[in-house]
This record gives sequence, C-alpha cells and structure tokens, in this order.
Amino acid sequence: MKSGRDLNPVLDRVDRTLESSLDRLFDFLRIPSISAQPAHAGDCRRAADWLCAELAAIGLDASVRETPGHPMVVAHDRSAAEGPHVLFYGHYDVQPVDPLELWHSAPFDPKLVRNDDGTARIVARGASDDKGQVMTFVEALRALRAEQGTLPLRVSIVIEGEEESGGANLLPFLQANRDELRADVALICDTSMLEGGVPAITTALRGMVGEDVTIHCASRDLHSGIYGNAARNPIELLCGILASVRDADSGRVLLPGFYDGVQDPLAEVRAQWQAIAPSDADFLGPVGLSVPAGERGYSAIEQTWCRPTFEINGMTGGYTGDGFKTVLPAQASAKVSFRLVAGQDPARIRAAFRDHVRAMLPADCTVEFAAHGGSFASVVPSDGPALPAALAALGAEWGHPAVTVGSGGSIPVVSEVKQALGMDSLLIGFALEDDRIHSPNEKYDLTSFHRGIRSWVRVLGALADA
Amino acid sequence: MKSGRDLNPVLDRVDRTLESSLDRLFDFLRIPSISAQPAHAGDCRRAADWLCAELAAIGLDASVRETPGHPMVVAHDRSAAEGPHVLFYGHYDVQPVDPLELWHSAPFDPKLVRNDDGTARIVARGASDDKGQVMTFVEALRALRAEQGTLPLRVSIVIEGEEESGGANLLPFLQANRDELRADVALICDTSMLEGGVPAITTALRGMVGEDVTIHCASRDLHSGIYGNAARNPIELLCGILASVRDADSGRVLLPGFYDGVQDPLAEVRAQWQAIAPSDADFLGPVGLSVPAGERGYSAIEQTWCRPTFEINGMTGGYTGDGFKTVLPAQASAKVSFRLVAGQDPARIRAAFRDHVRAMLPADCTVEFAAHGGSFASVVPSDGPALPAALAALGAEWGHPAVTVGSGGSIPVVSEVKQALGMDSLLIGFALEDDRIHSPNEKYDLTSFHRGIRSWVRVLGALADA
Repeated sequence: MKSGRDLNPVLDRVDRTLESSLDRLFDFLRIPSISAQPAHAGDCRRAADWLCAELAAIGLDASVRETPGHPMVVAHDRSAAEGPHVLFYGHYDVQPVDPLELWHSAPFDPKLVRNDDGTARIVARGASDDKGQVMTFVEALRALRAEQGTLPLRVSIVIEGEEESGGANLLPFLQANRDELRADVALICDTSMLEGGVPAITTALRGMVGEDVTIHCASRDLHSGIYGNAARNPIELLCGILASVRDADSGRVLLPGFYDGVQDPLAEVRAQWQAIAPSDADFLGPVGLSVPAGERGYSAIEQTWCRPTFEINGMTGGYTGDGFKTVLPAQASAKVSFRLVAGQDPARIRAAFRDHVRAMLPADCTVEFAAHGGSFASVVPSDGPALPAALAALGAEWGHPAVTVGSGGSIPVVSEVKQALGMDSLLIGFALEDDRIHSPNEKYDLTSFHRGIRSWVRVLGALADA
Repeated sequence: MKSGRDLNPVLDRVDRTLESSLDRLFDFLRIPSISAQPAHAGDCRRAADWLCAELAAIGLDASVRETPGHPMVVAHDRSAAEGPHVLFYGHYDVQPVDPLELWHSAPFDPKLVRNDDGTARIVARGASDDKGQVMTFVEALRALRAEQGTLPLRVSIVIEGEEESGGANLLPFLQANRDELRADVALICDTSMLEGGVPAITTALRGMVGEDVTIHCASRDLHSGIYGNAARNPIELLCGILASVRDADSGRVLLPGFYDGVQDPLAEVRAQWQAIAPSDADFLGPVGLSVPAGERGYSAIEQTWCRPTFEINGMTGGYTGDGFKTVLPAQASAKVSFRLVAGQDPARIRAAFRDHVRAMLPADCTVEFAAHGGSFASVVPSDGPALPAALAALGAEWGHPAVTVGSGGSIPVVSEVKQALGMDSLLIGFALEDDRIHSPNEKYDLTSFHRGIRSWVRVLGALADA
C-alpha cells in the first residue's frame, strides 16, 4: 500500500446500515428476472431499470442500454480524479425456478431465515447467483460515497441480463463500447469462497459448450402396442447415443479429439490444492454422495477445477405425467453440456458431439441441434500488483489468508472481456458451495452479504493504493 | 344360420337414425374421462352416469357399480326369452391428451371433419378408443329394440373406467360378480380392422408389463459446473441402463430368460399373415418410416403380432423448459413397458427387468419402481360355432371376407374374462391403424361408426342363430 487510507469509518457505516442494504437487496430479489423464459422479458427490464435507478441514486452516471436481447445496465463513477480504473461485471438475471414444489417458500418472496447456529441466510432465487453478489459491490460504493464523498479509484460498471441464458449479446456489446468500458482490470463477483469462510480469488475457469439435441423418428406419436419394436423409439435411440459419449469404466469422454491439448495441472498446483481443497468425502458428502463418479485418477475437486466434463442437463420424451401411457413418441430431446479446460476449442467440441450423434443415427431418423453458449476456458495471470493487493484486502476482512483456486463453473465474461477489451479479470465472490445456486431454496449467507460489502470497501481501497 | 331372420328393417333404421346416433356419441366424447389423472375422477363418474342413463333409456336394466377406483357400468337386457347369452365389454375412460399443442381442435370438443375423398371422420380423444367403438354396440341394441321390441339373444354389458390406467379393479369385479356376469361368450369392441375396410376378428393378443423406474443420486439438484463429472448424473445412468436392455445389432431384448417359452408362429400362420398383412413399407410408410427397427428376421407385422417387445414410453430428468439450465439433477425417471406373447410370465419379466436395473446401479444411487399393468398374452380358440358365424356376418356387412389376425396391443380383459368367468372372447372392432389412438387428433371414421353399428346388428343376429 502506498497510503495509510483509513477505511474504518466506511466499514462502520456498512455495519450500521446493513438493514437498509438488506431491504434494497430484497426489493431486487422480488423481481422474477428469469432470462431464459420469454414470459419474463418484462421482469428482466424491470430489474435493469431498478438497478439503474439505484446506481443513479448513489451518484453514478447510470443508463439502461438496449441489446437484441435483455438490456445492459452501464454506469460510471467519475468522482475519483485519478488512480486506477476498474470495470465491475455482474448479472441481474436469474435461473428458472422449477421444480417449484421443492421450494420451502416462494422463490421471489425473499426471506431472512435464522440458522440453528444463530447465523442467518437470505433465501430466494438469485440471492447468491448473482443479485446478492452484485449488491455487495453496489452497497460498498454507496458506503464509500456517503462517507468519503468520492471513491478511491475510477469505477465503471456493466451488469448484463443474459448470463443464465447464453449471454450472446455481451461480447458484441463490449466490442461496440470498447472505448467507454475499457479499464485497467475487471472485477467479477460471481464466484465462491472455500468452505469455512476462507476467502478466495478464482484464477482458472472452465469454458462451456451447450447443445440442445432432438431426435425425430416417426411422423407422429404411435401406440406402442401396435408399433412397438417395429418402429424406432427415439427415447431408446437417444439413450444409446448419450450413454455412448462416456466410457463407463474409465469415466473418460469418448468423442474423438476431446482431450487434445488438455494438460494436467502442475504437480505443485495439485499439491497446493490438496492442502486447501475439500476431500472427496467433504465435497460430496453434503449432497448425499460418497464416491466420485467421473474420470478415474482425479479427485472430485480436480475433476471440477481442471478436467473437462460431459453432462446431461435435461432429457424428455414421451409421456411423463401421472399414471401410464403406452405411447411410442415421435421425438425425444436432451440438453447436454461440456465444461472445457485450457486447450479445448468450443467449436471443435461442438462439432465432435454433433458428428458423434449423426454417426449413430439409423435410417428414418433425423436430428436437430440448437447451440447454447460456447466459451473457451480462461486462466487469470498472477503477475502484476492487483492480485496480491486484493488477496491481502480479503485476508484482512475475513481473518484468514486468501487463496487462489480453480472453478468448475464457466463465466464466459472473463474470456469476452479479454477478447473485447484486452483486460484481465479478478474473480472475487462470497458465495458458498452450499448456496444451492440453480436449485430450489437458493440462499446467500447474511455473513456473505455483510462481509462481502466490507470486502469490496477494502479491495477498492487496496487497488487504489496498489 | 338356423333361421332366415330379416335384419333389413333394423339396418334401415340404423341408416335413418345415424345423425341422432352421432349426436349421442358427441355428448359422450365431450366428457373428459381421463382415468390416469386424478383431477378427472369426477369426469370418469360423469361418463359412467351418462352411459348408464343411455342404456336404461334403451330398456336395459342398467346400474353404476362402485369399485375402489372408477365405477363400472353394468347392464342386462332380458327381452330375449331364450338363445345364447353374450357379455359385451368396453371402456368409457380415455388416454391423457398431451401434447395438447399438437391437436388441431380441442380434444373434448368433437368435430365431424370432411376428408378430401368425401368421407368424414370423427375427431376427439376417445373417438376410436373406446367411446366410438362402445357406441357402435349400444346403437345396435337401440335399433334392434326399437324395430323388433326384443333382442335376438340375451345380452349383458360391463363397461369399465380404468382400461387406460392399469385396470386393477376389473378382475376382482368380475370375480365378485361371477354369477351375474357369466355368459356363453364375451364380445369385446376395442380392436381394429385391416387397412382398406377388411373386417377382422383378433384371435391373438399380447400381454403387458409396465414399469415406472426412478433413479436417485445426489440429495438435491446440483450445479453442473461445480459438481459435473464428480457427482453421478442420474439421466446418464438411466440412459446407460435403458440402452443396455436391447442388443443394438440383433434387436433382441437381453434380459435373462426373456424369450423362454416364446415360440415362433407356425409356418402356415406366417404364410397366411404374409398374404393378408401389410408389408413393412405399407405398415411403416404412413407414419414416416421405412425400415423395421426391432428384431432382425421378423417383418414389422410379425414383430407386432407374435413377438415380445421392450419400449420406453416416457422419460424425464433435469431441466426441459425453454433455454438452458446447467443443472445436474438429483433424479431421473422413465416409464417402460414390455408386450408379452404366449409363454411369457409377466411376474418373471418384471423381476428380470428390476434385477437388471439394480445390477447396474453404482454406489450412492437408489432406484424406485412402480408397477403398472401385468397381464399374460391370450389366444382365442377357433373351435365352436361363434367365430365362423361372426366372421360370416362381418363379411356380409363389409363386402369382403373377414379374417382372423393377431394384435400387438394388450387387452387384459381377455385373460381376465377367461380367469374369472371361464369364457372365451370374440374381439371385433372397427378401428383403423391410422386412428391415432393415444395420440393427438385421434379419429374414428364415420364409416367405422356407421357400419360398426350395422355390423353388430348382423353379428348379434348371427350369434342368435349359430
């Protein structure tokens, strides 16, 4: 640090005003901004408008900006005359909520629920991913401006509304607004800490390829008593195709060229991970599992942080309601995804999957594909002053040295920011692995929210002085 | 025939009153009596009440009789002092209607639609299976009673409301009412003619075993970016299990003992079928297919009439809505069925399937099964005077010799009538293979309905004289 900046009055203000910060987050969480479902397009715009108004109230130059899809929120704080310039990224859209019947309270009626140990959690869709995380940054700005009049550095903000639905419009938007958005470093708040309150900056992220595949056989649904056996069953066909993507014994994906360019982590990195990462039992136990299911020879955490995957995210065909219906359906479909690591090209992986499906198609059957996502893995370089400054600031807030980790998730913005703006990103988040993101009863610990705000106050101070 | 019974006045009345017969069928079709869906329980009862009232109006002693499920309609016509006694069976319940968006008109708003060739079809759920077919018999009774005062033979009727949802209550009901329901022969109207208006009596029926199988892995839905690879995916697991039931090359079901006791049809039967049955191209072409998909070495029609099958009737897991959701679900489920031929024991087939699934379950995973149906195949003996008399009557009506055929469908009532009442059944129906039963836009040709009524007038006359 270059200066002895006193952040304590700002941190005190964060503590003092936590209740009103929470009220604002709840207002945000009440907006059902599900980007994947066209019926919620109006809600996505409402969320953008709400966020824009909040940023303007803090004193930022904020605007809602159109895209071919859901709008972007862009804001600039020019209160700092000098110092580095950071670009903050988050997303205001959320995942769908089904299966709704598994929620203990309505997903868009946020609740503060007391835990058995006296702590509390915020329960709602988006509480953790990503509205709660976005608001840690927004509330940090509010406290800094309120207490000090100016921010310690220049801040720009872009919050998108399509992170959960492909995010096709982000890259063109960044490219089209390159001059306005370019800064020294990007700050992205969409990741987790380690269990037990160990703060972490994510430096390796996987890419993703998503595919929607539909197999068509007969021209209409058939009676299985009349046509069974004789007419091709698209569910059975799709089962066979999807089951053949992975070798059951080794757990390896069998698509030709899938592992081309994929490298194992360095021995020293593996050793560091072994020291800080949860064991297989600790990682899988909380979700009711004990044995890693994927590639042999890798721990569960290694599979997540450094190995590519194949997953079936959804599948449907035929009659799936109550009772029984002896239908032989005309079609069956599945949503599948691949998480990619450094060295893999999303376009090549997508083509390999499509070739594999087509090669297994018998006569009379056709296939349709729809692409979702498609991003390279990214690795954040550890040189330069920003990473150590941010790690130190997080360590000071959480009372535990901060660590660098890999992430199994895919945050395409990291490679898009690099591609469009030539900037590296720092991925700093306060979520926990048990936040149930994308699942019923998503939560964000009140501690994550509260100390997340305090963390950003410290990180912005540290980056200003780095 | 023993007598020169003149049925022409009755047949003329059928022709003259077709419009009011059609009005009554439409009233019946408007009742959404979907037995598999609990929300329609009241509609099932309404359908039973409606049918009971119609039979009483004709002059039968009709009643609605309680069961642990949907009620039965039972009726007796005692206007004939002598002659043989027949028991007619049909069902008033219908299949679910999804996918609703594929219907061109509302499934319970019946329409008479004109075909390009000037003929017409009745379009509604249940038009063919089985309300239209049931009403051919009811309207025949009405015309006979109206024209002649009495029926030519003694008639009892049982119409159930659970044929499409397992039919668990029929056998106990037949057993409990054995003295009341026992007759000389059962008449069942739930089968098809051959294409091109060739009348047929079905003499071989397959049995069925249905299973609902659900695989559970993690204790909750997971984020595939965090847990993908490392946590078992139940959809992928279920795909692998279901794909392993059948050998991809030979098309044979691989469950141990599956073909024990199964015999190929006699060479002379195969030759007869080859003469009358549609070719693979004729059978599969109308539904957009050209190549039989099942067991090698059997024609499509042989697969349907005399070979056992394995079918996946429905499958669901994970996210199946619009867009994409990178979920790794906690469970996946499928509905599967086996059609059985003579020699196969439904209990043994069910056990073999369950053993197969359990043997493939890895650590951490559990499976739940729910049984649906479970009936032996049945073969109707061709000795005695009833079969030739009915064949002759049908031939006279349709202007083409009637034939005996096998059916791929399962009509458990045949074996249940045999077991509970010791009676053989004649399966006489006027549906066509293209009736889209169990599918959107189900139809029943106006010709099937009209000449079906006329057929029953002739068949009842012929049986009275046989």
